[in-house]
Amino acid sequence: MSAAKYIGIDLGGTKIAGVLADTGGTVLYQETIPTRTEEGQDKVIARIYGLIRVLLAAAGAGEVKGIGLCTPGPSDLKAGVVIEAPNLKWKDLPIVALLEKEFNLPVVLENDANAAAYGEYVYGAAKGRKDLVYLTVSTGIGGGIIVNGELVYGRNYSAGEVGHMVVLPDGPPCGCGRRGCVEALASGSAIAREAKALLLKEGQGGSGRTGLLWEMTGGDPERLTAKEVGKAAAQGDPLALSVLEKAFRYLGIALGNLVNLLNPEIIVIGGGVAAMGPLLFRPAIQAMEATAFAHMCRDLPVVPALLGGEAGTRGMVALACRKIRVEG
Amino acid sequence: MSAAKYIGIDLGGTKIAGVLADTGGTVLYQETIPTRTEEGQDKVIARIYGLIRVLLAAAGAGEVKGIGLCTPGPSDLKAGVVIEAPNLKWKDLPIVALLEKEFNLPVVLENDANAAAYGEYVYGAAKGRKDLVYLTVSTGIGGGIIVNGELVYGRNYSAGEVGHMVVLPDGPPCGCGRRGCVEALASGSAIAREAKALLLKEGQGGSGRTGLLWEMTGGDPERLTAKEVGKAAAQGDPLALSVLEKAFRYLGIALGNLVNLLNPEIIVIGGGVAAMGPLLFRPAIQAMEATAFAHMCRDLPVVPALLGGEAGTRGMVALACRKIRVEG
Repeated sequence: MSAAKYIGIDLGGTKIAGVLADTGGTVLYQETIPTRTEEGQDKVIARIYGLIRVLLAAAGAGEVKGIGLCTPGPSDLKAGVVIEAPNLKWKDLPIVALLEKEFNLPVVLENDANAAAYGEYVYGAAKGRKDLVYLTVSTGIGGGIIVNGELVYGRNYSAGEVGHMVVLPDGPPCGCGRRGCVEALASGSAIAREAKALLLKEGQGGSGRTGLLWEMTGGDPERLTAKEVGKAAAQGDPLALSVLEKAFRYLGIALGNLVNLLNPEIIVIGGGVAAMGPLLFRPAIQAMEATAFAHMCRDLPVVPALLGGEAGTRGMVALACRKIRVEG
Repeated sequence: MSAAKYIGIDLGGTKIAGVLADTGGTVLYQETIPTRTEEGQDKVIARIYGLIRVLLAAAGAGEVKGIGLCTPGPSDLKAGVVIEAPNLKWKDLPIVALLEKEFNLPVVLENDANAAAYGEYVYGAAKGRKDLVYLTVSTGIGGGIIVNGELVYGRNYSAGEVGHMVVLPDGPPCGCGRRGCVEALASGSAIAREAKALLLKEGQGGSGRTGLLWEMTGGDPERLTAKEVGKAAAQGDPLALSVLEKAFRYLGIALGNLVNLLNPEIIVIGGGVAAMGPLLFRPAIQAMEATAFAHMCRDLPVVPALLGGEAGTRGMVALACRKIRVEG
């Protein structure tokens, strides 16, 4: 095995995760620092530089062959420009050129959901498969599609917006400005919104105020998050259970559509909401099977992601390793 | 240019189309014969043999390098077996082995929607593009997806079932046994069914009986087809127009979902219903743009197929030419 090493950076709105790994993907060193977006773009870039310097020092001189960086929001991956990262307040930032100039190393840019999909594909739950769909269900719903071992990019490198598949025309409003996207029905925000609405509605009649979920809110449903809904459901709260079942039925319809379109070998679901386990997987798989053709659902694993918060950094190591070796 | 020639056969429920073409795709000879499924499987196979013999004779001895055949319904493309072709009453038929034995030539099997997608990609409306979605809207809705110049097959070679994307949960029943698929909302059968239901409903009150569509049915709505609905709509019949607008809005939602998932360079729509032209394309594109992200819809051509009934045979020539040259 070569002594070559790669750095993977996952830039998020609250933290920047970095790993140093060898070409086999073994993590040799890792470090995570806060993003502190409030300090402004230049300071955030300086913090990324600092993290990379720490990882370079851990590697030893001349051993790092390239850097992979993933960011949230739409990017022009070919030009290496982050078009828009609302969390970071970045716009049209040529991050690849900046990093390449600073470190004199080839840099690969990717969006974070694709990076996580690739991480799960190479090192995680989808290892050994070549056709897969990865979904991350958290505040929003994102994803990445891999066909025949390759990420599907499309014309603008924007493919894989699984969260904005419309599964209920004229349904609830979505953060994207449209209606009835699966993100507006099954994401953490959607679950919290739906539970709040029911508590407030039931609350008027008095019945909702006796439930476990109501207790958890301390009498203030505005503070409710999907996590509490999951906890209440795990303890058998009927209102919480009904909210989750409805939400994940729509998630399952989206999965079924993906199955009919792409006939994947495996579906991997990560993100905070996926930590609800069977509360999510059971109704989602049931609805998927009611939506897609039976022969495509048969023996189709729908499984939790394995790499958790490391999927992005490790995916970027794999992508950097592969793209830089291919291009170089 | 090589003197090598290929044969493409498109086996349908009513006719068998065959072409002989050179490696550049130029059609040198073509012939179409009736399928006559009622005569049984052996006779249909004998008729395919006969058609191939005619094309071989037209080619001249030893010049044909391979045969491409597309069939309706699910097949095991790798094994060369038609798993089920309900129109033909075929089940588990090893058609590739039969043809290879009969003609001592390599044979490539494909499903008909993929073949048409590939035909439009190599010779038709999507020429020069590499990421595209092809839909055929006729009695049912089928399709094929091409990513980075390759057909998307998936685990069971069953990808591309665009007609069975659910866009209205609990919507009208579909031929697949499920509900709310786009095929159940926007196919020729769905359009005819919806128009009939409205005529019969309006008919009770008497108002529907004065309309153009009612006249066209000669007082018997049971005989209505999507073609008449299209004709009546083209002449401004309000009932027909409203049926089409609703149907193609759902088609457009399906297109929007495909755009968000695959970010294609072009969408090509063929099939009998697509002959309605702007009556289909205008509402479908409008709904697509209301569903998908703006930057993925911008400059995205949504265009009619160019090859019509020849898409299947010509696609099979291209696939045979490519696969046999690669494998051989």
